[in-house]
Amino acid sequence: MGAEVYVAGVGMTKFGKSTESLPELMVEAAFKAMGDANIHTIDYVFIGVMSVEEFTGESNFAALITDRLGLSGVPSSRVETASSTGSAVFESAFYAVASGYHKNVLIIAGEKMTHLPTARTTKILAEAIEQNERNHGASMPALAAMITQKYQQEARLSTEQMQSVLAKVAIKNHYNGSLNPYAQFRKVVSEEDYFASRWVSFPLRTYDCAPITDGAVAVVLTAEKKRIRVSGLGHATDTLAVRHRDSFTSFRSTRLAAQQAYNMAKINPQDISVAEVHDAFTPFEIIGTEDLGFFPPQQGWKALGKGLTSIKGKIPINPSGGLKARGHPVGASGLAQIAEVVWQLRGELEPSRQVQGARIGLSQNIGGLANNNLVTILERTDSYRPVPVYWQSLFDPGNTETKEISEQAPAANYGTLETFTTLYTTPEGVPSPLTLGFVRTNDQKMILARARQENLKIGQRVQLEREGDLFYFREGSFTGWMQERIGRWLSRVFVPPNAKEGKS
Amino acid sequence: MGAEVYVAGVGMTKFGKSTESLPELMVEAAFKAMGDANIHTIDYVFIGVMSVEEFTGESNFAALITDRLGLSGVPSSRVETASSTGSAVFESAFYAVASGYHKNVLIIAGEKMTHLPTARTTKILAEAIEQNERNHGASMPALAAMITQKYQQEARLSTEQMQSVLAKVAIKNHYNGSLNPYAQFRKVVSEEDYFASRWVSFPLRTYDCAPITDGAVAVVLTAEKKRIRVSGLGHATDTLAVRHRDSFTSFRSTRLAAQQAYNMAKINPQDISVAEVHDAFTPFEIIGTEDLGFFPPQQGWKALGKGLTSIKGKIPINPSGGLKARGHPVGASGLAQIAEVVWQLRGELEPSRQVQGARIGLSQNIGGLANNNLVTILERTDSYRPVPVYWQSLFDPGNTETKEISEQAPAANYGTLETFTTLYTTPEGVPSPLTLGFVRTNDQKMILARARQENLKIGQRVQLEREGDLFYFREGSFTGWMQERIGRWLSRVFVPPNAKEGKS
Repeated sequence: MGAEVYVAGVGMTKFGKSTESLPELMVEAAFKAMGDANIHTIDYVFIGVMSVEEFTGESNFAALITDRLGLSGVPSSRVETASSTGSAVFESAFYAVASGYHKNVLIIAGEKMTHLPTARTTKILAEAIEQNERNHGASMPALAAMITQKYQQEARLSTEQMQSVLAKVAIKNHYNGSLNPYAQFRKVVSEEDYFASRWVSFPLRTYDCAPITDGAVAVVLTAEKKRIRVSGLGHATDTLAVRHRDSFTSFRSTRLAAQQAYNMAKINPQDISVAEVHDAFTPFEIIGTEDLGFFPPQQGWKALGKGLTSIKGKIPINPSGGLKARGHPVGASGLAQIAEVVWQLRGELEPSRQVQGARIGLSQNIGGLANNNLVTILERTDSYRPVPVYWQSLFDPGNTETKEISEQAPAANYGTLETFTTLYTTPEGVPSPLTLGFVRTNDQKMILARARQENLKIGQRVQLEREGDLFYFREGSFTGWMQERIGRWLSRVFVPPNAKEGKS
Repeated sequence: MGAEVYVAGVGMTKFGKSTESLPELMVEAAFKAMGDANIHTIDYVFIGVMSVEEFTGESNFAALITDRLGLSGVPSSRVETASSTGSAVFESAFYAVASGYHKNVLIIAGEKMTHLPTARTTKILAEAIEQNERNHGASMPALAAMITQKYQQEARLSTEQMQSVLAKVAIKNHYNGSLNPYAQFRKVVSEEDYFASRWVSFPLRTYDCAPITDGAVAVVLTAEKKRIRVSGLGHATDTLAVRHRDSFTSFRSTRLAAQQAYNMAKINPQDISVAEVHDAFTPFEIIGTEDLGFFPPQQGWKALGKGLTSIKGKIPINPSGGLKARGHPVGASGLAQIAEVVWQLRGELEPSRQVQGARIGLSQNIGGLANNNLVTILERTDSYRPVPVYWQSLFDPGNTETKEISEQAPAANYGTLETFTTLYTTPEGVPSPLTLGFVRTNDQKMILARARQENLKIGQRVQLEREGDLFYFREGSFTGWMQERIGRWLSRVFVPPNAKEGKS
């Protein structure tokens, strides 16, 4: 393996609604990080921005920012992986240092979003969603909401229990944010506030969704020994379409990335002192803590309920306030998570928000709807940690096989409703409110479809109708559903002789 | 330094106007490269696309392409540096392998551009231009045209001579393209064809500008020893604004990148057997061959005239046909240059277009208006090349100092016209034709301004007028210009005592 890589300094702007331009925010963060590192000779500038062309109308952003920093001449590249851009640009910068070709590398990630109308921003963010699901009107909150409903069913929670779990995540992260001077939201949220907030996409409310934010973060990496070392990196993709996955309620990309990062750092989940977990939606924090191996599957909500994930808990999650309260400038969030972990490991924060005795910290960052996720592990260099010679991971990432995907339309007209949501804030050009559901057809294909009725229930039998590229569903009669099942079964058992020959 | 990195395989789609989607093109190139490499276990997928969100309406492209390849699970990042994206993504992939963390890395670069109206494409490409220059209506061809006029003046060429030089570049590269099965244009261009083609931005014609193109290229890098080794990489930025530079006719970013690449490879320009040089505009090939040290400043056009840069010449430039004839899918061109160098070094091309005995090849790729350039050097591993222990570069990159930039408006109203152009195909929303010029004011500021008259001449005295954010210029009287010069001189010599005290 290459050279060791250390974090020399971090810097961050206040997150929120800003009147500054994106280059101004990014330059501010960069100068703070260079000052913090006391390093002013930079060999490479890595830039992380997600949809900067559409948000600001400027391209060629690596050269633009390097010029604004007064560093023109220094090489610069932009790295992008949707909403995990902040971690991905950190990873590419890590390789540049680990390769031995660059000594001091500046990473700057940022996004400017609040100046556009919400429907426009939602549309830009929805470009990260697979085309068919996007065409049905699915936005990020709609997909997250359907994942939430499925989690509720799999964990055997009542709607009230699930709502109470989500509320607890929001309340915890808003409390943490109230202590963080960089956070967009600094006010404590009560249970009443949570339940009074409006639906975004049932069962998710405003307080379940990370806000639209402006902000920038910078990190200086160096090959010279410093107090914080980058000890683990993991990165994995998943299918672009949510319907192509084995599970709705666990992200394979997180599990694979965690496995790589734990292996590289030669640690296990229980060695982590503090973690920043991508809570773009409150349920994602619960799922994240399970996928990272902090808690068993479908047990994350219980651990939250017991207070294990609060700042003074056993494994503090999102002491920064998370994406929920610190804010979510999409291209910057991953690097903001890393900056928070650095601060926590240094142990120099205000006592109210300092995780005591943190030695190893982790950040988990989601790209798109969990199809380009990264896990980053940082560690204090002054903490002696014996690693067995024959080290073996105890972390079980679960099923990480790639599923064979067939993009053919279903041959069946009936199926079962896997999960659904009603979306209230739809992307530009989509009718509102819109009820969407994932339907598993009788021939085992997963289809996203628009609902033609209300009062839906997970597991109910539905009938599909196709109009152009879009699928619709309504309650299906038991007789029709059963007839199709029997018909399909018969056609498999009694295959006509020439049909068999036709196969190859 | 890290591990050695080798090129295991390359693949490319035909360039041109395609009915395929960008993912289809990129998947085709990827499978060709993996087949060529005979490597099917990929550890990382690097994606190079420039303005894919605006061209195709899809973001999250790293996950999207990895999914389409059937590689979901494998980590993937997108790298972007405007029109040098193809080389920058190659560089980041190189670090990932050189760091020792990844063994086999797949790089895929592509762009889909032909489906949009030309004015829209021109506008998307113009987002890479510095805001003030873009606001004046400057497009890439307009800036390239002004650079051409300045080159003509500095090299003391007549307009006819300059036209003949440009024609020779176009004719050579179209001839080379006629031999390349992947090229967008496969027909030979005559001098008559060249002079019959219409003006894009005086003195540049259609045949001086690279076309709008669809296409994709892929390369597999590996840590395992193969026939072609990556022996040199260089990367440098320059000021975003052209007016902030010391020279219009030489690109500091190329000179810096070349210096780094030659130093890393421990070679000098004369060791290069074949080069692909970024000819988005014909004059850029001439300037490139000078900046890379193949020929002295202002001598590139002579070398071209002598045939030194043709396929059978001493240092063949753009045997592929270059961006001019092979085509210019902006995010892919850099990787297409690298693929061509690989083929030339392997020595397996059709005899008509094979550079004989090529051992070391170079590609030079320009990002934006020459503010994010890369130089890549590839070498055969079977050619013994003794390197002196105390190796020293003979390549002189010239002045590579960073200039102090003041963005204040000029205090002077008069100045000298440095260069100008008339642009016929303007970006969306800009009147056509439009005459633009760079004016050096009497207080030594460089200003881009729109002309208020015809019959301009480099070096003439002009008077500036400001309207809002835009500057305009017209011929200035000798008296007014002289009065301002004398006034400025007097104010410097006879500084009032209190003004001196006011300074600090």
